[in-house]
Amino acid sequence: MMKIKIVKNILDANDQMALENKKLFDEAGVVAINIMASPGAGKTSLILKTIDLLGLPVAVVEGDIASTFDAEKVGAKNVPVVQINTGGACHLDAAMIRKAVKGLRLKGARILFVENVGNLVCPAEFKLGESAKVVVASVPEGDDKPYKYPGMFSAATAIVLNKIDTLPVIDFNMKRFKNGVHAVNAGAPIFEVSCKTGEGLGNWIKWLQKLVS
Amino acid sequence: MMKIKIVKNILDANDQMALENKKLFDEAGVVAINIMASPGAGKTSLILKTIDLLGLPVAVVEGDIASTFDAEKVGAKNVPVVQINTGGACHLDAAMIRKAVKGLRLKGARILFVENVGNLVCPAEFKLGESAKVVVASVPEGDDKPYKYPGMFSAATAIVLNKIDTLPVIDFNMKRFKNGVHAVNAGAPIFEVSCKTGEGLGNWIKWLQKLVS
Repeated sequence: MMKIKIVKNILDANDQMALENKKLFDEAGVVAINIMASPGAGKTSLILKTIDLLGLPVAVVEGDIASTFDAEKVGAKNVPVVQINTGGACHLDAAMIRKAVKGLRLKGARILFVENVGNLVCPAEFKLGESAKVVVASVPEGDDKPYKYPGMFSAATAIVLNKIDTLPVIDFNMKRFKNGVHAVNAGAPIFEVSCKTGEGLGNWIKWLQKLVS
Repeated sequence: MMKIKIVKNILDANDQMALENKKLFDEAGVVAINIMASPGAGKTSLILKTIDLLGLPVAVVEGDIASTFDAEKVGAKNVPVVQINTGGACHLDAAMIRKAVKGLRLKGARILFVENVGNLVCPAEFKLGESAKVVVASVPEGDDKPYKYPGMFSAATAIVLNKIDTLPVIDFNMKRFKNGVHAVNAGAPIFEVSCKTGEGLGNWIKWLQKLVS
Protein backbone atom coordinates (compact mmCIF):
# COMPACT_ATOMS: atom_id res chain seq x y z
CA MET A 1 0.00 0.00 0.00
CA MET A 2 2.86 2.34 0.80
CA LYS A 3 4.31 1.96 -2.67
CA ILE A 4 0.99 2.70 -4.34
CA LYS A 5 0.46 5.80 -2.23
CA ILE A 6 3.92 7.12 -3.00
CA VAL A 7 3.51 6.48 -6.73
CA LYS A 8 0.21 8.39 -6.55
CA ASN A 9 1.92 11.28 -4.77
CA ILE A 10 4.64 11.36 -7.43
CA LEU A 11 2.02 11.46 -10.20
CA ASP A 12 0.05 14.20 -8.39
CA ALA A 13 3.21 16.29 -7.98
CA ASN A 14 4.05 15.72 -11.64
CA ASP A 15 0.55 16.77 -12.75
CA GLN A 16 0.89 19.96 -10.74
CA MET A 17 4.21 20.83 -12.34
CA ALA A 18 2.82 19.92 -15.78
CA LEU A 19 0.05 22.50 -15.24
CA GLU A 20 2.69 25.10 -14.39
CA ASN A 21 4.65 24.17 -17.53
CA LYS A 22 1.48 24.55 -19.60
CA LYS A 23 0.98 28.06 -18.17
CA LEU A 24 4.58 28.93 -19.00
CA PHE A 25 4.13 27.67 -22.58
CA ASP A 26 0.85 29.60 -22.96
CA GLU A 27 2.55 32.80 -21.80
CA ALA A 28 5.36 32.24 -24.32
CA GLY A 29 2.79 31.60 -27.07
CA VAL A 30 4.16 28.13 -27.76
CA VAL A 31 2.25 24.86 -28.15
CA ALA A 32 4.09 21.87 -26.68
CA ILE A 33 3.73 18.46 -28.35
CA ASN A 34 4.85 15.32 -26.54
CA ILE A 35 6.14 12.80 -29.10
CA MET A 36 6.21 9.20 -27.89
CA ALA A 37 7.15 5.91 -29.58
CA SER A 38 9.09 2.67 -29.40
CA PRO A 39 12.86 2.94 -29.83
CA GLY A 40 13.61 3.50 -33.51
CA ALA A 41 10.07 4.23 -34.72
CA GLY A 42 11.27 7.53 -36.16
CA LYS A 43 10.54 10.29 -33.62
CA THR A 44 13.67 12.27 -34.51
CA SER A 45 13.19 11.73 -38.25
CA LEU A 46 9.63 13.04 -37.95
CA ILE A 47 10.80 16.14 -36.06
CA LEU A 48 13.56 16.80 -38.63
CA LYS A 49 11.19 16.44 -41.61
CA THR A 50 8.57 18.57 -39.86
CA ILE A 51 11.09 21.37 -39.26
CA ASP A 52 11.79 21.38 -43.02
CA LEU A 53 8.14 21.41 -44.07
CA LEU A 54 6.26 23.32 -41.37
CA GLY A 55 7.32 26.86 -42.14
CA LEU A 56 6.93 27.92 -38.51
CA PRO A 57 9.61 28.57 -35.86
CA VAL A 58 9.99 25.64 -33.48
CA ALA A 59 12.08 24.58 -30.50
CA VAL A 60 12.93 21.03 -29.46
CA VAL A 61 13.62 19.08 -26.28
CA GLU A 62 15.29 15.73 -26.91
CA GLY A 63 14.91 13.01 -24.25
CA ASP A 64 17.15 9.95 -24.13
CA ILE A 65 18.59 7.60 -21.53
CA ALA A 66 22.03 8.45 -22.93
CA SER A 67 23.74 10.07 -25.95
CA THR A 68 23.30 13.44 -27.71
CA PHE A 69 22.91 12.24 -31.33
CA ASP A 70 19.36 13.47 -31.73
CA ALA A 71 20.00 16.95 -30.34
CA GLU A 72 23.00 17.29 -32.67
CA LYS A 73 20.83 16.44 -35.70
CA VAL A 74 18.21 19.02 -34.67
CA GLY A 75 20.86 21.61 -33.79
CA ALA A 76 22.32 21.26 -37.29
CA LYS A 77 19.08 22.82 -38.55
CA ASN A 78 19.68 25.96 -36.46
CA VAL A 79 16.71 25.17 -34.25
CA PRO A 80 16.89 25.85 -30.48
CA VAL A 81 17.34 22.45 -28.83
CA VAL A 82 18.15 21.00 -25.42
CA GLN A 83 19.08 17.36 -24.77
CA ILE A 84 17.87 15.68 -21.58
CA ASN A 85 19.76 12.52 -20.60
CA THR A 86 17.64 10.72 -18.03
CA GLY A 87 20.49 8.47 -16.88
CA GLY A 88 18.30 5.45 -16.50
CA ALA A 89 14.76 6.79 -16.24
CA CYS A 90 12.38 5.32 -18.80
CA HIS A 91 10.35 8.49 -19.44
CA LEU A 92 10.48 12.29 -19.20
CA ASP A 93 8.62 14.06 -16.42
CA ALA A 94 7.38 17.61 -15.93
CA ALA A 95 10.31 18.60 -13.70
CA MET A 96 12.83 17.57 -16.36
CA ILE A 97 10.97 19.68 -18.91
CA ARG A 98 10.87 22.67 -16.56
CA LYS A 99 14.63 22.49 -16.10
CA ALA A 100 15.29 21.91 -19.81
CA VAL A 101 13.25 24.85 -21.11
CA LYS A 102 15.12 27.23 -18.82
CA GLY A 103 18.06 26.80 -21.20
CA LEU A 104 15.93 27.10 -24.31
CA ARG A 105 14.94 30.14 -26.40
CA LEU A 106 11.15 29.65 -26.41
CA LYS A 107 10.26 33.24 -27.34
CA GLY A 108 9.32 33.36 -31.01
CA ALA A 109 8.75 29.60 -31.30
CA ARG A 110 5.24 28.44 -32.15
CA ILE A 111 5.72 24.74 -31.40
CA LEU A 112 7.89 23.00 -28.82
CA PHE A 113 8.47 19.40 -29.85
CA VAL A 114 9.35 17.21 -26.88
CA GLU A 115 10.83 13.88 -27.97
CA ASN A 116 10.25 11.43 -25.14
CA VAL A 117 12.40 8.40 -24.27
CA GLY A 118 11.78 5.50 -26.69
CA ASN A 119 9.25 3.42 -24.76
CA LEU A 120 5.62 2.45 -25.47
CA VAL A 121 4.70 2.10 -21.80
CA CYS A 122 5.94 4.50 -19.14
CA PRO A 123 5.87 7.90 -20.93
CA ALA A 124 2.07 7.71 -21.32
CA GLU A 125 1.70 8.11 -17.53
CA PHE A 126 3.56 11.40 -17.14
CA LYS A 127 2.09 14.72 -18.27
CA LEU A 128 4.68 17.30 -19.30
CA GLY A 129 2.49 20.36 -19.89
CA GLU A 130 1.83 19.48 -23.51
CA SER A 131 -1.21 20.43 -25.61
CA ALA A 132 -1.07 17.22 -27.65
CA LYS A 133 0.40 13.73 -27.37
CA VAL A 134 1.56 12.23 -30.66
CA VAL A 135 2.37 8.52 -30.83
CA VAL A 136 4.70 7.47 -33.65
CA ALA A 137 4.24 3.84 -34.67
CA SER A 138 6.15 2.24 -37.53
CA VAL A 139 5.33 -0.48 -40.03
CA PRO A 140 8.26 -2.80 -39.13
CA GLU A 141 7.04 -2.97 -35.51
CA GLY A 142 3.95 -4.81 -36.68
CA ASP A 143 0.19 -4.24 -36.81
CA ASP A 144 -0.43 -5.65 -33.32
CA LYS A 145 1.03 -2.76 -31.32
CA PRO A 146 -2.27 -0.98 -30.45
CA TYR A 147 -3.56 -4.26 -29.00
CA LYS A 148 -0.41 -4.83 -26.94
CA TYR A 149 0.14 -1.26 -25.72
CA PRO A 150 -3.42 0.07 -25.32
CA GLY A 151 -2.42 2.64 -22.68
CA MET A 152 -0.12 4.46 -25.08
CA PHE A 153 -2.50 4.39 -28.04
CA SER A 154 -5.49 5.47 -25.95
CA ALA A 155 -3.50 8.47 -24.66
CA ALA A 156 -2.69 9.72 -28.16
CA THR A 157 -4.15 12.94 -29.58
CA ALA A 158 -2.86 11.80 -32.99
CA ILE A 159 -0.95 8.82 -34.35
CA VAL A 160 1.74 8.93 -37.02
CA LEU A 161 2.37 5.58 -38.72
CA ASN A 162 5.91 5.91 -40.10
CA LYS A 163 7.99 3.84 -42.55
CA ILE A 164 5.13 3.09 -44.95
CA ASP A 165 7.88 2.77 -47.61
CA THR A 166 8.64 -0.65 -46.03
CA LEU A 167 5.08 -1.99 -46.59
CA PRO A 168 6.21 -4.03 -49.65
CA VAL A 169 8.73 -6.01 -47.57
CA ILE A 170 6.97 -6.23 -44.17
CA ASP A 171 3.92 -8.30 -43.24
CA PHE A 172 1.60 -5.56 -41.99
CA ASN A 173 -2.19 -5.55 -42.09
CA MET A 174 -3.28 -1.90 -42.18
CA LYS A 175 -6.89 -2.73 -41.34
CA ARG A 176 -5.84 -4.70 -38.27
CA PHE A 177 -3.64 -1.80 -37.11
CA LYS A 178 -6.43 0.77 -37.56
CA ASN A 179 -9.03 -1.46 -35.91
CA GLY A 180 -6.66 -1.81 -32.94
CA VAL A 181 -6.26 1.94 -32.65
CA HIS A 182 -9.99 2.60 -32.98
CA ALA A 183 -10.78 -0.02 -30.32
CA VAL A 184 -9.00 2.11 -27.70
CA ASN A 185 -9.12 5.56 -29.31
CA ALA A 186 -11.99 6.38 -31.65
CA GLY A 187 -11.08 10.00 -32.25
CA ALA A 188 -7.36 10.21 -32.99
CA PRO A 189 -6.37 10.80 -36.62
CA ILE A 190 -3.83 8.36 -38.09
CA PHE A 191 -1.27 9.84 -40.50
CA GLU A 192 0.40 7.27 -42.76
CA VAL A 193 3.83 8.65 -43.64
CA SER A 194 7.35 7.85 -44.67
CA CYS A 195 9.93 10.21 -43.21
CA LYS A 196 12.41 8.64 -45.63
CA THR A 197 10.50 9.40 -48.86
CA GLY A 198 8.34 12.25 -47.58
CA GLU A 199 5.14 10.45 -48.58
CA GLY A 200 2.03 11.42 -46.62
CA LEU A 201 3.62 14.20 -44.56
CA GLY A 202 1.32 16.87 -46.03
CA ASN A 203 -1.71 15.95 -43.90
CA TRP A 204 0.43 15.77 -40.77
CA ILE A 205 1.79 19.27 -41.45
CA LYS A 206 -1.75 20.61 -42.07
CA TRP A 207 -2.88 19.08 -38.76
CA LEU A 208 -0.02 20.80 -36.92
CA GLN A 209 -0.72 24.13 -38.61
CA LYS A 210 -4.37 23.91 -37.56
CA LEU A 211 -3.35 22.98 -34.01
CA VAL A 212 -1.38 26.21 -33.58
CA SER A 213 -3.64 28.54 -35.60
CA MET B 1 15.07 9.54 -0.12
CA MET B 2 12.02 7.52 0.84
CA LYS B 3 11.27 6.66 -2.79
CA ILE B 4 14.83 5.50 -3.47
CA LYS B 5 14.85 3.30 -0.39
CA ILE B 6 11.56 1.65 -1.33
CA VAL B 7 12.72 1.02 -4.89
CA LYS B 8 15.86 -0.59 -3.50
CA ASN B 9 13.76 -2.80 -1.22
CA ILE B 10 11.62 -3.89 -4.16
CA LEU B 11 14.72 -4.79 -6.18
CA ASP B 12 16.22 -6.70 -3.23
CA ALA B 13 12.99 -8.66 -2.76
CA ASN B 14 12.88 -9.36 -6.50
CA ASP B 15 16.50 -10.59 -6.49
CA GLN B 16 15.69 -12.96 -3.64
CA MET B 17 12.72 -14.42 -5.49
CA ALA B 18 14.77 -14.64 -8.70
CA LEU B 19 17.29 -16.80 -6.83
CA GLU B 20 14.47 -19.07 -5.68
CA ASN B 21 13.16 -19.29 -9.27
CA LYS B 22 16.66 -20.22 -10.46
CA LYS B 23 16.78 -23.03 -7.90
CA LEU B 24 13.36 -24.26 -9.06
CA PHE B 25 14.54 -24.22 -12.70
CA ASP B 26 17.76 -26.06 -11.78
CA GLU B 27 15.76 -28.76 -9.99
CA ALA B 28 13.51 -29.15 -13.05
CA GLY B 29 16.58 -29.37 -15.30
CA VAL B 30 15.47 -26.35 -17.34
CA VAL B 31 17.53 -23.33 -18.41
CA ALA B 32 15.55 -20.09 -18.39
CA ILE B 33 16.31 -17.42 -20.99
CA ASN B 34 14.97 -13.89 -20.57
CA ILE B 35 14.27 -12.40 -24.00
CA MET B 36 14.09 -8.62 -24.08
CA ALA B 37 13.60 -6.10 -26.89
CA SER B 38 11.77 -3.04 -28.16
CA PRO B 39 8.15 -3.57 -29.19
CA GLY B 40 8.09 -5.33 -32.55
CA ALA B 41 11.77 -6.30 -32.76
CA GLY B 42 10.77 -9.92 -33.25
CA LYS B 43 10.90 -11.68 -29.86
CA THR B 44 7.94 -13.93 -30.64
CA SER B 45 9.16 -14.64 -34.18
CA LEU B 46 12.54 -15.65 -32.78
CA ILE B 47 10.93 -18.00 -30.25
CA LEU B 48 8.70 -19.56 -32.93
CA LYS B 49 11.61 -20.12 -35.36
CA THR B 50 13.78 -21.46 -32.53
CA ILE B 51 11.10 -23.99 -31.53
CA ASP B 52 11.13 -25.26 -35.14
CA LEU B 53 14.92 -25.51 -35.41
CA LEU B 54 16.18 -26.36 -31.92
CA GLY B 55 15.18 -30.00 -31.67
CA LEU B 56 14.83 -29.79 -27.90
CA PRO B 57 11.68 -29.62 -25.74
CA VAL B 58 10.93 -26.08 -24.57
CA ALA B 59 8.35 -24.17 -22.56
CA VAL B 60 7.43 -20.51 -22.93
CA VAL B 61 6.21 -17.65 -20.76
CA GLU B 62 4.79 -14.74 -22.76
CA GLY B 63 4.74 -11.30 -21.14
CA ASP B 64 2.61 -8.45 -22.45
CA ILE B 65 0.76 -5.44 -21.09
CA ALA B 66 -2.37 -6.82 -22.77
CA SER B 67 -3.53 -9.42 -25.35
CA THR B 68 -2.85 -13.14 -25.79
CA PHE B 69 -1.74 -13.18 -29.45
CA ASP B 70 1.79 -14.36 -28.74
CA ALA B 71 0.79 -17.20 -26.44
CA GLU B 72 -1.72 -18.39 -29.04
CA LYS B 73 1.00 -18.52 -31.71
CA VAL B 74 3.30 -20.52 -29.43
CA GLY B 75 0.46 -22.78 -28.26
CA ALA B 76 -0.30 -23.63 -31.89
CA LYS B 77 3.08 -25.42 -31.94
CA ASN B 78 2.00 -27.69 -29.08
CA VAL B 79 4.52 -26.11 -26.72
CA PRO B 80 3.59 -25.53 -23.05
CA VAL B 81 2.94 -21.78 -22.73
CA VAL B 82 1.55 -19.32 -20.21
CA GLN B 83 0.61 -15.72 -20.97
CA ILE B 84 1.24 -13.04 -18.37
CA ASN B 85 -0.70 -9.80 -18.85
CA THR B 86 0.94 -7.19 -16.64
CA GLY B 87 -2.02 -4.79 -16.88
CA GLY B 88 0.17 -1.73 -17.08
CA ALA B 89 3.54 -2.81 -15.73
CA CYS B 90 6.42 -2.17 -18.13
CA HIS B 91 8.43 -5.31 -17.29
CA LEU B 92 8.14 -8.80 -15.85
CA ASP B 93 9.38 -9.51 -12.34
CA ALA B 94 10.39 -12.67 -10.48
CA ALA B 95 7.06 -12.97 -8.65
CA MET B 96 5.11 -12.95 -11.93
CA ILE B 97 7.37 -15.72 -13.24
CA ARG B 98 6.92 -17.77 -10.07
CA LYS B 99 3.16 -17.57 -10.42
CA ALA B 100 3.23 -18.27 -14.18
CA VAL B 101 5.39 -21.39 -14.02
CA LYS B 102 3.04 -22.96 -11.48
CA GLY B 103 0.62 -23.42 -14.38
CA LEU B 104 3.32 -24.66 -16.76
CA ARG B 105 4.57 -28.18 -17.50
CA LEU B 106 8.32 -27.59 -16.95
CA LYS B 107 9.25 -31.24 -16.45
CA GLY B 108 10.88 -32.54 -19.60
CA ALA B 109 11.60 -29.07 -21.01
CA ARG B 110 15.25 -28.13 -21.51
CA ILE B 111 14.76 -24.40 -22.12
CA LEU B 112 12.19 -21.99 -20.73
CA PHE B 113 11.93 -18.94 -22.98
CA VAL B 114 10.57 -15.93 -21.12
CA GLU B 115 9.42 -13.21 -23.49
CA ASN B 116 9.53 -9.95 -21.57
CA VAL B 117 7.35 -6.87 -22.18
CA GLY B 118 8.52 -4.91 -25.23
CA ASN B 119 10.70 -2.23 -23.66
CA LEU B 120 14.43 -1.42 -23.94
CA VAL B 121 14.63 0.14 -20.49
CA CYS B 122 12.83 -1.30 -17.48
CA PRO B 123 13.13 -5.10 -18.00
CA ALA B 124 16.93 -4.92 -17.68
CA GLU B 125 16.57 -4.03 -13.98
CA PHE B 126 14.57 -7.07 -12.91
CA LYS B 127 16.12 -10.52 -12.59
CA LEU B 128 13.69 -13.38 -13.18
CA GLY B 129 15.86 -16.39 -12.29
CA GLU B 130 17.23 -16.72 -15.82
CA SER B 131 20.58 -18.21 -16.86
CA ALA B 132 20.94 -15.85 -19.84
CA LYS B 133 19.56 -12.53 -21.00
CA VAL B 134 19.09 -12.22 -24.76
CA VAL B 135 18.44 -8.81 -26.29
CA VAL B 136 16.73 -8.82 -29.68
CA ALA B 137 17.50 -5.71 -31.74
CA SER B 138 16.21 -5.21 -35.26
CA VAL B 139 17.59 -3.43 -38.32
CA PRO B 140 14.61 -1.05 -38.81
CA GLU B 141 15.11 0.33 -35.27
CA GLY B 142 18.45 1.79 -36.36
CA ASP B 143 22.13 1.34 -35.58
CA ASP B 144 22.12 3.83 -32.69
CA LYS B 145 20.20 1.73 -30.17
CA PRO B 146 23.23 0.43 -28.16
CA TYR B 147 24.32 4.05 -27.64
CA LYS B 148 20.87 5.17 -26.52
CA TYR B 149 19.98 2.16 -24.34
CA PRO B 150 23.35 1.16 -22.85
CA GLY B 151 21.80 -0.43 -19.75
CA MET B 152 19.93 -3.00 -21.81
CA PHE B 153 22.83 -3.85 -24.13
CA SER B 154 25.33 -4.08 -21.27
CA ALA B 155 23.04 -6.53 -19.46
CA ALA B 156 22.88 -8.90 -22.47
CA THR B 157 24.47 -12.35 -22.45
CA ALA B 158 23.89 -12.43 -26.21
CA ILE B 159 22.37 -10.14 -28.82
CA VAL B 160 20.23 -11.20 -31.77
CA LEU B 161 20.05 -8.62 -34.56
CA ASN B 162 16.84 -9.50 -36.39
CA LYS B 163 15.32 -8.43 -39.75
CA ILE B 164 18.60 -8.40 -41.67
CA ASP B 165 16.43 -9.06 -44.75
CA THR B 166 15.50 -5.35 -44.56
CA LEU B 167 19.12 -4.14 -44.83
CA PRO B 168 18.65 -3.26 -48.54
CA VAL B 169 15.86 -0.79 -47.75
CA ILE B 170 16.94 0.58 -44.33
CA ASP B 171 19.82 2.94 -43.57
CA PHE B 172 21.77 0.84 -41.08
CA ASN B 173 25.51 0.92 -40.45
CA MET B 174 26.49 -2.52 -39.13
CA LYS B 175 29.90 -1.34 -37.94
CA ARG B 176 28.33 1.49 -35.95
CA PHE B 177 25.86 -0.93 -34.34
CA LYS B 178 28.59 -3.40 -33.37
CA ASN B 179 30.90 -0.68 -32.08
CA GLY B 180 28.04 0.55 -29.92
CA VAL B 181 27.46 -2.92 -28.48
CA HIS B 182 31.16 -3.52 -27.86
CA ALA B 183 31.54 -0.17 -26.10
CA VAL B 184 29.22 -1.36 -23.32
CA ASN B 185 29.54 -5.14 -23.66
CA ALA B 186 32.77 -6.60 -25.01
CA GLY B 187 31.86 -10.25 -24.55
CA ALA B 188 28.36 -10.80 -25.88
CA PRO B 189 28.06 -12.57 -29.24
CA ILE B 190 25.93 -10.83 -31.87
CA PHE B 191 23.83 -13.11 -34.11
CA GLU B 192 22.69 -11.48 -37.36
CA VAL B 193 19.45 -13.18 -38.38
CA SER B 194 16.22 -12.88 -40.27
CA CYS B 195 13.34 -14.72 -38.64
CA LYS B 196 11.42 -14.11 -41.86
CA THR B 197 13.88 -15.83 -44.24
CA GLY B 198 15.67 -18.01 -41.68
CA GLU B 199 19.06 -16.55 -42.61
CA GLY B 200 21.71 -16.71 -39.88
CA LEU B 201 19.67 -18.71 -37.37
CA GLY B 202 22.13 -21.63 -37.41
CA ASN B 203 24.71 -19.97 -35.16
CA TRP B 204 22.02 -18.86 -32.72
CA ILE B 205 20.71 -22.42 -32.48
CA LYS B 206 24.26 -23.76 -31.92
CA TRP B 207 24.79 -21.21 -29.15
CA LEU B 208 21.58 -22.31 -27.42
CA GLN B 209 22.47 -25.99 -27.75
CA LYS B 210 25.86 -25.31 -26.18
CA LEU B 211 24.21 -23.30 -23.38
CA VAL B 212 22.08 -26.26 -22.30
CA SER B 213 24.60 -29.05 -22.98
